[in-house]
Amino acid sequence: METLEVTYRISADSAAPEALVESVLLEQTIETPRSVAERYPFVEEHMMGSVRELRPEESGDVIATLSLPFSNAAADPAQFLNVLFGNSSLHPHVTLLDFHPPSTVTRLLPGPSFGMEGIRQTTGVTGRPLTCSALKPVGLSVQELSDICRTLAESGIDLIKDDHYLADQSFSPFRERVRICQEVVDDVSSATGRRVVYVPNLSGGPDDIRRQAAYVQEQGVRAVMIAPMLVGLPTLHATCRDDLDVPVLAHPSFGGISAIRPSVLFGKLFRLYGADAVIFANYGGRFSYDAALCAEIAQQLRSAWLGIKPSFPIPAGGMDADRVSELVQFFGLDSILLIGGSLLEAGDDLDSKARRFVETVHSSATTLQNAF
Amino acid sequence: METLEVTYRISADSAAPEALVESVLLEQTIETPRSVAERYPFVEEHMMGSVRELRPEESGDVIATLSLPFSNAAADPAQFLNVLFGNSSLHPHVTLLDFHPPSTVTRLLPGPSFGMEGIRQTTGVTGRPLTCSALKPVGLSVQELSDICRTLAESGIDLIKDDHYLADQSFSPFRERVRICQEVVDDVSSATGRRVVYVPNLSGGPDDIRRQAAYVQEQGVRAVMIAPMLVGLPTLHATCRDDLDVPVLAHPSFGGISAIRPSVLFGKLFRLYGADAVIFANYGGRFSYDAALCAEIAQQLRSAWLGIKPSFPIPAGGMDADRVSELVQFFGLDSILLIGGSLLEAGDDLDSKARRFVETVHSSATTLQNAF
Repeated sequence: METLEVTYRISADSAAPEALVESVLLEQTIETPRSVAERYPFVEEHMMGSVRELRPEESGDVIATLSLPFSNAAADPAQFLNVLFGNSSLHPHVTLLDFHPPSTVTRLLPGPSFGMEGIRQTTGVTGRPLTCSALKPVGLSVQELSDICRTLAESGIDLIKDDHYLADQSFSPFRERVRICQEVVDDVSSATGRRVVYVPNLSGGPDDIRRQAAYVQEQGVRAVMIAPMLVGLPTLHATCRDDLDVPVLAHPSFGGISAIRPSVLFGKLFRLYGADAVIFANYGGRFSYDAALCAEIAQQLRSAWLGIKPSFPIPAGGMDADRVSELVQFFGLDSILLIGGSLLEAGDDLDSKARRFVETVHSSATTLQNAF
Repeated sequence: METLEVTYRISADSAAPEALVESVLLEQTIETPRSVAERYPFVEEHMMGSVRELRPEESGDVIATLSLPFSNAAADPAQFLNVLFGNSSLHPHVTLLDFHPPSTVTRLLPGPSFGMEGIRQTTGVTGRPLTCSALKPVGLSVQELSDICRTLAESGIDLIKDDHYLADQSFSPFRERVRICQEVVDDVSSATGRRVVYVPNLSGGPDDIRRQAAYVQEQGVRAVMIAPMLVGLPTLHATCRDDLDVPVLAHPSFGGISAIRPSVLFGKLFRLYGADAVIFANYGGRFSYDAALCAEIAQQLRSAWLGIKPSFPIPAGGMDADRVSELVQFFGLDSILLIGGSLLEAGDDLDSKARRFVETVHSSATTLQNAF
């Protein structure tokens, strides 16, 4: 029988960690007392799951690896999450540490449609990290945003994304913004021979996102951004499968589901549900992830896994142009470096600051390549 | 200017709680250094938000109430969550404690279509808590599930819901299960004159849910269940608005986003996005919520708020029939009591145990009414 292996941390605060493991096993499978399942041979044989490993840690926490029936998880993209960490997410003593689905999961969740290689083809950039910046702050008019877009595009930035607060607001209507910003990057691409990519933010209910996806692709847009936790991971999956012929950058907003290890949420689940590149809170910026966790997220996104395409890591969040060399060293050539607010802080010097960001990425990459 | 007021707890663990308040304010508004916004008069005037109150607690935590621009949040149902708690959810030191939108939020999010009164009309039950049980465990055939459904329906249970693990699995196909279970409750309703309601679980991507919603309503189903955190809150909203003419029971699965106070997630957000009744982990059961928190969730669901309809609280999760009198006392007449696994444990005595559950709810309600 195919199983979904899931590893949870059961905290030592729990009154009886080992009893909690049994209760988590029942919670994530039959959700009844064990005696109920024993009345039904099919359930007892195929649905009960089992405890594969129990490993006590020095802290008193218990690391429990369970085998859960994949036939249950495989029903649909919402049900997969349900079996992985549905009710158990409500237990304060339980954290999702890792999971290993059978390779047949890709029939349900085929992972990124484009992945790192697809984004490299879209941009024409090889052998170095890509550069990315953002159109912000929210409240600017389409004219103001498109002026920033032009400056960033001319400076040599590869990907210019909407801020995640840009939606369809009256002061910057979605369609007008997309049309004009795409014209700007098309202009600059024609003039320079580079392929500058504008990445609009899709937001709303599933029908809104479908309409927006159709519109942006009509306009020639070659990548989009979606925040999977805002719209729901099943909506990300459906949008990638049904509505998009371009790569998706995933934004981490509303992803503070602290009962899931961030490398599992951003590194594995976002990728499995179709994100071609994943933005996450970098170490040393506005958020509290440490370097080891960021390395782990990047590693998960790029690792060989289930035969699905690797996704680009996009460390971001209060990053400064001064840290570029360090970050190229740390994340390596297969990464996208996103610097937003810190470039915009330059005001009238945006152009020169953006150019310095681009040049530092290029030269750091060359240094790194030569080091091999 | 209309504002969304949001209250966060900034934990004392944070190096500099008051500096973190400023950073949360920027995070949830312009997401750039303040100097960037000051270059644009419209942004400075309308988008910056402000700190309305800072209240240090004895623990060293700081309770911060911010006013955020509603014009930004109002763009769509995903953007509302984004402004409420998007990036800040990623801060380990920040918890969402409460929020107060302007009354115009109901243009975007009108709340439950049916609410408590609609569910009472659907079932024909007045003046007492409703009774609810579940078809489970997953792995049973349609025949086995419909046998349980018949026993529960004949015992006098008002609402019989699918377990949240029932999706469209091969051993219990969705359409067949819905058709046959609905026939069962229709039979029993005709025979008894009561209106027994079968509540199938809708699961999957947005198109799956739309197709399922259409199918179940064709079959005469009069309420459905959806897990908003699995499918995404914007999908719940869109489904209620566009695809359903029957009430929705919301299931808490995948709702362990511990950075949001559960009374806010289950009591306010689920209701605002359209849930007519909300299942939550009861005190004294399998989960760790305490009685005060459960009372707060129930209070939030039923309170006068924004002119939107009140929703039924459904305490659940390892509840035992022995606790029914206590729970009727605790949650009052406007509640739905859900007992699942503990009834099924009775095996061949399911019928008598379910009848005892029903009778205890009815008699406890009479006692409570007479006490007034």
